[in-house]
Amino acid sequence: MALAPAQDAFAQSLARHLPADTLRPAEPRYLEEPRGKWHGNAAWVALPRCTDDVATIIRACATARVGVIPYGGGTGLVAGQVKPDGPLPLILSLERMNKVLGVYPEENTLIAQAGAILADVQAAAADRNRLFPLSLASEGSARIGGLLGTNAGGVNVLRYGNARDLCLGLEAVLPDGQVHHGLKRLRKDNTGYDLRNLLIGAEGTLGVITAATLKLSPVPAAQGTAFLVVNDPAAALSLLSLARDHIGDGISAFELISGVGLDFLAEKLPDLRRPFPENPRWMVLIDLGLSLGQDPHTALENLFEAALAAGLVSDGLIAQSEAQRQDFWRVREDIPTANRMVGAIASHDISLPLGAVADFIATARERLKPLGPLRINCFGHLGDGNLHFNLFPPKGTARTAFLHLAEDGSRILHELVHATGGSISAEHGIGRLKASDLERYGDPAKLWAMRTIKTALDPLGIMNPGAVLRQTATT
Amino acid sequence: MALAPAQDAFAQSLARHLPADTLRPAEPRYLEEPRGKWHGNAAWVALPRCTDDVATIIRACATARVGVIPYGGGTGLVAGQVKPDGPLPLILSLERMNKVLGVYPEENTLIAQAGAILADVQAAAADRNRLFPLSLASEGSARIGGLLGTNAGGVNVLRYGNARDLCLGLEAVLPDGQVHHGLKRLRKDNTGYDLRNLLIGAEGTLGVITAATLKLSPVPAAQGTAFLVVNDPAAALSLLSLARDHIGDGISAFELISGVGLDFLAEKLPDLRRPFPENPRWMVLIDLGLSLGQDPHTALENLFEAALAAGLVSDGLIAQSEAQRQDFWRVREDIPTANRMVGAIASHDISLPLGAVADFIATARERLKPLGPLRINCFGHLGDGNLHFNLFPPKGTARTAFLHLAEDGSRILHELVHATGGSISAEHGIGRLKASDLERYGDPAKLWAMRTIKTALDPLGIMNPGAVLRQTATT
Repeated sequence: MALAPAQDAFAQSLARHLPADTLRPAEPRYLEEPRGKWHGNAAWVALPRCTDDVATIIRACATARVGVIPYGGGTGLVAGQVKPDGPLPLILSLERMNKVLGVYPEENTLIAQAGAILADVQAAAADRNRLFPLSLASEGSARIGGLLGTNAGGVNVLRYGNARDLCLGLEAVLPDGQVHHGLKRLRKDNTGYDLRNLLIGAEGTLGVITAATLKLSPVPAAQGTAFLVVNDPAAALSLLSLARDHIGDGISAFELISGVGLDFLAEKLPDLRRPFPENPRWMVLIDLGLSLGQDPHTALENLFEAALAAGLVSDGLIAQSEAQRQDFWRVREDIPTANRMVGAIASHDISLPLGAVADFIATARERLKPLGPLRINCFGHLGDGNLHFNLFPPKGTARTAFLHLAEDGSRILHELVHATGGSISAEHGIGRLKASDLERYGDPAKLWAMRTIKTALDPLGIMNPGAVLRQTATT
Repeated sequence: MALAPAQDAFAQSLARHLPADTLRPAEPRYLEEPRGKWHGNAAWVALPRCTDDVATIIRACATARVGVIPYGGGTGLVAGQVKPDGPLPLILSLERMNKVLGVYPEENTLIAQAGAILADVQAAAADRNRLFPLSLASEGSARIGGLLGTNAGGVNVLRYGNARDLCLGLEAVLPDGQVHHGLKRLRKDNTGYDLRNLLIGAEGTLGVITAATLKLSPVPAAQGTAFLVVNDPAAALSLLSLARDHIGDGISAFELISGVGLDFLAEKLPDLRRPFPENPRWMVLIDLGLSLGQDPHTALENLFEAALAAGLVSDGLIAQSEAQRQDFWRVREDIPTANRMVGAIASHDISLPLGAVADFIATARERLKPLGPLRINCFGHLGDGNLHFNLFPPKGTARTAFLHLAEDGSRILHELVHATGGSISAEHGIGRLKASDLERYGDPAKLWAMRTIKTALDPLGIMNPGAVLRQTATT
């Protein structure tokens, strides 16, 4: 049975069961996504103020069989938040449920509503001398519900894990409107199936996350950051191993940066201070957060000396001040900005077994050669085996002249990722962009289990229809 | 429809599809559990040598609608591995699938079959200078599949997480005999629902784990251990906070030990060297694992000085050698042994929000007083908020004279845990022992989701029937 559209009559009827101004016509901002490739189709947005209102909305959608798109900050990169076709869905934005409900510094926990913005959660933790370590480029607008729904990653996964690892409990509205009350502040709780982790990463297809208990960490007593020039990705991986031997758990981030990325920065953001007069072909940005009595500057110097002796690095810069640390990080964070200004033909968010990363980068380059003289910007969270492997037109040429290569390029790359035991979505999720890739590369038994669970928990198929799992023709 | 019993005819028919000697009559050891409170009922055990054989067995059980109990080391404490009544299940022991299939030190990963014994996995990691940090009393016999199936905890959860946090990928046979191939060696993989975490902690009720990719860690460069005498649990928690400020991530374990536990050791294991001439009322065992250039002895001395100055500790001992470190740990590890020799009336495996632990211990003692002069040994993984809160008869009295208080004692305690936002099973799981407690204290929406998932993935109800979720009268 097909879904019904969320048209005016439905919205007006639902509005009568909710406080004034909960339903509004959907402004254009709810229909856009950051890369501008997808355009959503929806007439109404619901803006609930509390969990009970969310439950009322979901129950009404179930009764009318109207699709619902849970909406956070709208920063997702796989079109999980925009549905371009089919019956109009209702957009359910959590933006008004944006409070930090409690901070428990002595337990290293914090409870936030799903609409809380990541930067606000970070600030609430910092106010009590604690760290909420999830950190990514869109932290000023991404919201906790969406970050959990997509199991977001970012730069600190190496040390602190991804969003999943930072969540201790959830409150959520299930597809029939039941409220799951699971906001426990426990480190250990082995009472039944892991519903929390099932909802995390389900991208709103199994329910709506309305609040979460999050895990905080001690603020490191001292931080240090360095750029280290490496010959190639293999040397970068050996450097990571060496750094672990030296510094153990103190490594917060270990990012690979390619010369192409630095060239893009020089081309598009020329005012940005680049670290080396000549752009090296490969470098690593390493970030340390150490405890009392440890000196990150000394640790980085010792690491640099050892890496130099081992022939792994040829040059390096250790940040001499917090301001310089921030400058170093700006370089990393502006690479996606420069990428967008140059204009990628195709972007990829892949992960690989660490031991396979160096060979993969070389092989992928070879396999892509027949497509023509594309520029490759390969960078990312090397410590996690997570690369953003993006294809660009040759310098001075128009992106449009090469767009026809996108499909072949992505296919070549994803086939190699699959053959290498990697993932075609390391941290961005599946959304609608990769739903058919998931069918192609996913484990058949896992896909069967996913479809079985989706049908069982959401038999009407109202929750974020078409995201993660494609719909059948009738819906 | 009721399950069919795994009788001789079924076993003989199944044996024809499997290599010789895969099916055997069930020896008594498969029908026992460590506390001797439950006795299993089964005639046959299957001992497959490979995943394909596991799939053959599960398919045959599905066809004949025979219940299957996935069996690891048999060390579980909640009767997940023994089914005392109903149609005879087939026991499916993974003990022959006990190999470490690969160690990848440069990636900090290891792949093991489900029947690999924890101590063997630890040793395989240590051989390559890596740490597999899962550590618990039964590590010499517990197997990886069971440890993951129950999401086991242990002494290093504070730093490294529980079994769930140490698993990157799974191979498993689903209830219809499909094999899920998910042995990826990836740190990040956001491709669909989290089937891995759904199988972990499901106690064999949603499928059989046959192999796992596990996460390794660097071996700490230096370790240090201390006993610190504290006035009460509140002081122990303040000490934990102070220790985190001083030592950050370097704290591997933080265990609370009560004077009652030390008295039991003195009574039942008098040859064991106790740390202090007079047993203190409360003490903490703290374990550090630090990286290169850090000295755990100095770190512990500094912590002790600071804690003394803050009035949190009154005495302390820092291990002066590795042998003394092992002696300190022996004290902790022999407490459950002494408990068993004294004979508990009722044992509990609870967790609480850290901020609520101290009040809980005091209140629980008050609430239990009306039952009579019971002795309480409250100890455990304080850093995780996980306490083992066990009730014993007064000294010199027979346990049997007090056993009638077990039910009331557990009820009083679990009601208080529930009211405090805690868990009635922190690390041991639900099994059959706590299935009715789960119904009483579990979140109704979560229970609905669990039953819905169980019915969808295992519609015949053959996987570990009656564990976690109670069966209906007909099965």
